[in-house]
Amino acid sequence: MNNIYKPYKRGLKKPIVTLTTDFGNKDPYVACMKGVILSICPEATIIDITHDISKFDIEEAAYILYRAYSFFPPGTIHVCVVDPGVGTERKPIAIKTRRYIFVGPDNGVLTIAAEDDGIEDIRVIESRYVMLSEVSYTFHGRDIFAPAAAWIALGYPLEMLGRSIDRIDVVKFDKPQISGGKVIGRIIYVDSYGNLVTNIKWDLIKDRVTFGEKVRLYYMGNEVSIPLSRSYGEVPLGELVLIPGSGGFMEISVNMGNASEKLGLKKGDQIYMEINR
Amino acid sequence: MNNIYKPYKRGLKKPIVTLTTDFGNKDPYVACMKGVILSICPEATIIDITHDISKFDIEEAAYILYRAYSFFPPGTIHVCVVDPGVGTERKPIAIKTRRYIFVGPDNGVLTIAAEDDGIEDIRVIESRYVMLSEVSYTFHGRDIFAPAAAWIALGYPLEMLGRSIDRIDVVKFDKPQISGGKVIGRIIYVDSYGNLVTNIKWDLIKDRVTFGEKVRLYYMGNEVSIPLSRSYGEVPLGELVLIPGSGGFMEISVNMGNASEKLGLKKGDQIYMEINR
Amino acid sequence: MNNIYKPYKRGLKKPIVTLTTDFGNKDPYVACMKGVILSICPEATIIDITHDISKFDIEEAAYILYRAYSFFPPGTIHVCVVDPGVGTERKPIAIKTRRYIFVGPDNGVLTIAAEDDGIEDIRVIESRYVMLSEVSYTFHGRDIFAPAAAWIALGYPLEMLGRSIDRIDVVKFDKPQISGGKVIGRIIYVDSYGNLVTNIKWDLIKDRVTFGEKVRLYYMGNEVSIPLSRSYGEVPLGELVLIPGSGGFMEISVNMGNASEKLGLKKGDQIYMEINR
Repeated sequence: MNNIYKPYKRGLKKPIVTLTTDFGNKDPYVACMKGVILSICPEATIIDITHDISKFDIEEAAYILYRAYSFFPPGTIHVCVVDPGVGTERKPIAIKTRRYIFVGPDNGVLTIAAEDDGIEDIRVIESRYVMLSEVSYTFHGRDIFAPAAAWIALGYPLEMLGRSIDRIDVVKFDKPQISGGKVIGRIIYVDSYGNLVTNIKWDLIKDRVTFGEKVRLYYMGNEVSIPLSRSYGEVPLGELVLIPGSGGFMEISVNMGNASEKLGLKKGDQIYMEINR
Repeated sequence: MNNIYKPYKRGLKKPIVTLTTDFGNKDPYVACMKGVILSICPEATIIDITHDISKFDIEEAAYILYRAYSFFPPGTIHVCVVDPGVGTERKPIAIKTRRYIFVGPDNGVLTIAAEDDGIEDIRVIESRYVMLSEVSYTFHGRDIFAPAAAWIALGYPLEMLGRSIDRIDVVKFDKPQISGGKVIGRIIYVDSYGNLVTNIKWDLIKDRVTFGEKVRLYYMGNEVSIPLSRSYGEVPLGELVLIPGSGGFMEISVNMGNASEKLGLKKGDQIYMEINR
Repeated sequence: MNNIYKPYKRGLKKPIVTLTTDFGNKDPYVACMKGVILSICPEATIIDITHDISKFDIEEAAYILYRAYSFFPPGTIHVCVVDPGVGTERKPIAIKTRRYIFVGPDNGVLTIAAEDDGIEDIRVIESRYVMLSEVSYTFHGRDIFAPAAAWIALGYPLEMLGRSIDRIDVVKFDKPQISGGKVIGRIIYVDSYGNLVTNIKWDLIKDRVTFGEKVRLYYMGNEVSIPLSRSYGEVPLGELVLIPGSGGFMEISVNMGNASEKLGLKKGDQIYMEINR
């Protein structure tokens, strides 16, 4: 291939491409994408965010991409392929945000992160130039998204990918409802430790609570009183603790234990908290 | 170490080494291999194809390597270590093909990919120069295959690895049998989505079928009629669909579902299809 | 950021940072660490040792780091984050050894590897300069260990990290007890093949045994006689074999099988062997 473009310049000497998929780590699919990227842009550093997204779970992928994207250097190209609609009408898109480029299907998987960073331009990927010469109907990760990301990494101008569009599919976390002393929220993610990540931002409640106080938590007909702490180790082993998580959301945890198992709560479940002020 | 060789030149500025093993991702074995490679060839880009091959499953590794190898830049060195015979008579080999180098045990794991690309030279890895100074009897991935691949990446000539041989162990997919309107095939791989990959190449039947038509599938005493489609989304959610897969083989899938679970079919099972012409 | 330091020079042109954690591969935590490292030190090559350490299992992490660390080029920075005490009194530390730098919490996770290589200096990581501007109480992997490792990779002097200390937390493998013909040991690790790694070093017994002889193994009230061999393939398929493992410890294995399942032994279990001389 004739690499006429200069490496993508937004502060990056070496382009970085991250991958987030539901492909798993056993099948050859992730390796195919990496081979395609390195064939076009041998200088790229490829970083896996994860390939263990629950199959077809667009919201989960959107959350994980949102949690990780902003820690990468400006100019990083984030590719996310959770794509149950592959081969149908849904469009492949590239989004330029304030600091990053996002590449993936237009099914909402990119929007939480992209809107958080500030969308500047959205392009449909239409140029055959940035696709493999034969495009399958079932593996656009390899045939469209990987090569498009690699061409962008080389400096291919976004404007040449295809037409600009204004509206894209959106996935949103429910906003928590807050009224008086009650906050109604939802579990949006359960991590591998069993920490229950809620959709309640610390910023939303931090002026109304004090570290050390107990917060009443209601869930599935049960109630429990949980101390608000900064770190797990402030409560005894095996005890519940409510923590402003490292991603900015309130998290329910167990010191050296698994809160999801202890409370029987899982992704999507509703909770509500009573705070005193 | 005294790196007297120039980086391996077949179109690659930076050598790429891929790894395919049954080591899993928890044990320290993969990291040992990567440390050895980087100690010898710090410029190498190391890409995991997978480390989740079913333990000792040479055929599965051969299939996954075959599916992924050709998407990497020419000059890539593909190392595959699924090696139940480690420490016994089986030989460590390096195969030069038209565009790549394959490194691994002579137990068939490399042959499907290597023959597909076109074998040009096969060498037994005998030179102590490309091995670690102490070679264990149980971990040739670390002691022979990783360092040999790294030396090749540095430009060590294949001819100096050891004697040339003509015959290597072979693993083959059964060829499907086709007679009249019947194609008898086999499931050669079940991916993490539950897609059933058959040994029936699309090229074998494409002139005898039309997209949209229904194909009768017989399996384990059952029969079912499946529409031939290009993409999953052309059938309703949860419905079976027969697709020319992205690897060139016919695949039986379920739109947003798991065909392996739905049909109770697994790797190795026989199927047959009736096509009309 | 203003990268005023020269790349870390101890034989490495490109700094290498390895990661060992119990974060798993699905959550965004590992990717956050990698993004932080690349933001500070874009030249770093990041290698995963593993992220599948059993949650909070400091001893397991110490073992895996010990098994892998020495195969990396001198100058490699090994970061290990298994950190149940995050946010409490336990100190973040960096250890300079003869050939490497180790970075992680002072809970023993680094000590087996660091002492094996030879400790030269231990620093508490106190300098706010090498931390993210906001340090959470629950994710020091991202906020302290990753950026500190990246700054060290850039050449930030260890002496400027913080005060020097003499004593650190220690995790030790039990030493096996040997008396007369009996060796009492313990299973310290079970790998993904089911190989049982004992704490009995080959060096301890090699002058008292001969390959081919049978060793009596006593475990949980049972006894069995196992041939001492160099490689798995020297015994018939499915048979037990005692092998000097690739890490220097005696291992109990089954040729093409799973010794842990066959004997019902797991990590921590005691065994004893009778050797004749």
